[in-house]
Amino acid sequence: MPVETNLLSGILKGDRTVLSRAITCVESSSPADQATSEKLLNNILPQTGQSIRIAITGTPGAGKSTLIDKLGVYLINKGYRIAVLAIDPSSAKSGGSILGDKTRMENLSRMDNAFIRPSPSLGMAGGVAGKTREVILLCEAAGFDIIIVETMGVGQGELAVHNMVDFFLLLQIAGGGDELQGMKKGIVELADAIVFNKADGDNIKNTEAALKQIKMALHYLSTSRANEVPVLKCSALENKGVEQIWERIKKHIDNQKADKEFDKKRARQNREWMMNLLKNQIIDLLFSDKEVEKKINTLEQSVLENKILPAHAAKEIITVFKERKNKR
Amino acid sequence: MPVETNLLSGILKGDRTVLSRAITCVESSSPADQATSEKLLNNILPQTGQSIRIAITGTPGAGKSTLIDKLGVYLINKGYRIAVLAIDPSSAKSGGSILGDKTRMENLSRMDNAFIRPSPSLGMAGGVAGKTREVILLCEAAGFDIIIVETMGVGQGELAVHNMVDFFLLLQIAGGGDELQGMKKGIVELADAIVFNKADGDNIKNTEAALKQIKMALHYLSTSRANEVPVLKCSALENKGVEQIWERIKKHIDNQKADKEFDKKRARQNREWMMNLLKNQIIDLLFSDKEVEKKINTLEQSVLENKILPAHAAKEIITVFKERKNKR
Repeated sequence: MPVETNLLSGILKGDRTVLSRAITCVESSSPADQATSEKLLNNILPQTGQSIRIAITGTPGAGKSTLIDKLGVYLINKGYRIAVLAIDPSSAKSGGSILGDKTRMENLSRMDNAFIRPSPSLGMAGGVAGKTREVILLCEAAGFDIIIVETMGVGQGELAVHNMVDFFLLLQIAGGGDELQGMKKGIVELADAIVFNKADGDNIKNTEAALKQIKMALHYLSTSRANEVPVLKCSALENKGVEQIWERIKKHIDNQKADKEFDKKRARQNREWMMNLLKNQIIDLLFSDKEVEKKINTLEQSVLENKILPAHAAKEIITVFKERKNKR
Repeated sequence: MPVETNLLSGILKGDRTVLSRAITCVESSSPADQATSEKLLNNILPQTGQSIRIAITGTPGAGKSTLIDKLGVYLINKGYRIAVLAIDPSSAKSGGSILGDKTRMENLSRMDNAFIRPSPSLGMAGGVAGKTREVILLCEAAGFDIIIVETMGVGQGELAVHNMVDFFLLLQIAGGGDELQGMKKGIVELADAIVFNKADGDNIKNTEAALKQIKMALHYLSTSRANEVPVLKCSALENKGVEQIWERIKKHIDNQKADKEFDKKRARQNREWMMNLLKNQIIDLLFSDKEVEKKINTLEQSVLENKILPAHAAKEIITVFKERKNKR
């Protein structure tokens, strides 16, 4: 029996060990694994799409894993099965991935209806986060109802993640001086809700002040009241405000489903995914060409020193690519 | 004598009529004009780079042309020659370009040492604003000391423009409710200064309030005091604050030149320009292929309906491109 058939039946049964193996296969760069993945993904496709996909982003220290731990347990107690995919930018550098996810989400990691998996952000060309989209599909085929993608709020990766989820939550903390960093980076544009965590103990006063401040700023940012991003607070540590976060997510999804925006957004995301892959792959095709690389190396210094026009250099490089292709 | 030789000698003499003709040639899509442009641009290259390149961006109604009119006259009176390139997004749609530039910058347009030219933002693929970079070079070769690029603060074009200038000025007005729009869109990240215009008459109070508000917001946004974007006010209408704006720009440029950052930034911009052109041109090469287009049309609906994996569709489309190239 081919590998993908075994993986397929295991996944459809909701077997987490098989799901893990399938993800490893999808994330592998070996040609054999890639061939298996492709067949597997094509086969599971009809069983995907039914979940709610949520991104939780925020700078390190905002308390993302604590919130996900509490939110996950809350949702499992409501009867859902939860998958958490943590995109770890550092793992791309080290070649490994997040250590200690089990301890980061202590309660959730012990539950049968939870699945936690780091997703290394390899191949970030163009800001596309590795194979996270494919992993979401695998989790859906394995019967997970809610997929939470955890990501560091530190750069262009946000746009890619925004384009693979139904709800984008920006987690912040007051008093760290980074209340409005998300605004500066343009991440607020993406957010469906902003949540201030650590509204507990000594930090309650700070949080109230930050809420007021950001609400005022957002008020000015919005063209209409309906456009204003909701701002919430919570204490993941004390398990407060978690229910309100879920209710806000649920309301958003229900509204989107009611006016058919939900499916339209998913369709748009599929199209974007295809177009981005096309763009990245054709760019890779150009830059991986040995003759092109040689030409770039020859011309680059002259471009840096303003000795030849960048447009002229680009034209010569593209010509090398075209000629190479024609000769083969 | 070849066309480009005539153009070249006219440009080097600072002849504005010849400069206009050269710009039209550079912006033309006819193969003959493109060949002429390429030779011309290669020939002028040693005479370029000496100007200060300034972008002034802001939503329609912020008073960009009034400010440029006053700033331009001020600088000409100081002995500089000024070129103004207005990137007009609407002109790309209509096929024409800004009408009435002469009346928009009434005083400047009458001066011998000024050159005003709309720059249609054709070919915006990837956010690169047409041929603005090449036009900047032409103006430099024609001896203009300060090039002002005027652009609407409405989208991704800002990043492209930011990458072709030495100083990026965000112009705002108080009381319009869009004080922080630039922040939301992530444009503040790009700004070297934020200037509130229309600090006159009834609007003085509004401006003071807006200044306070944005300074507070920026204070929170900055990781250090040194990082804080300077916020200024002016009344272009009453010709107030124009000198302070120029002093701020001059100080910035002088500082950058003192620590060699000026040349490094220019070199980086050249490299980025080449890389962006390469990416855009290879993407164009893919999407302009008739067989590729046919394949995309065949697969797109299935992708939208989640019937085939976007990654799978992308792979098939790239394969069509590769095979076509090999056959030719």
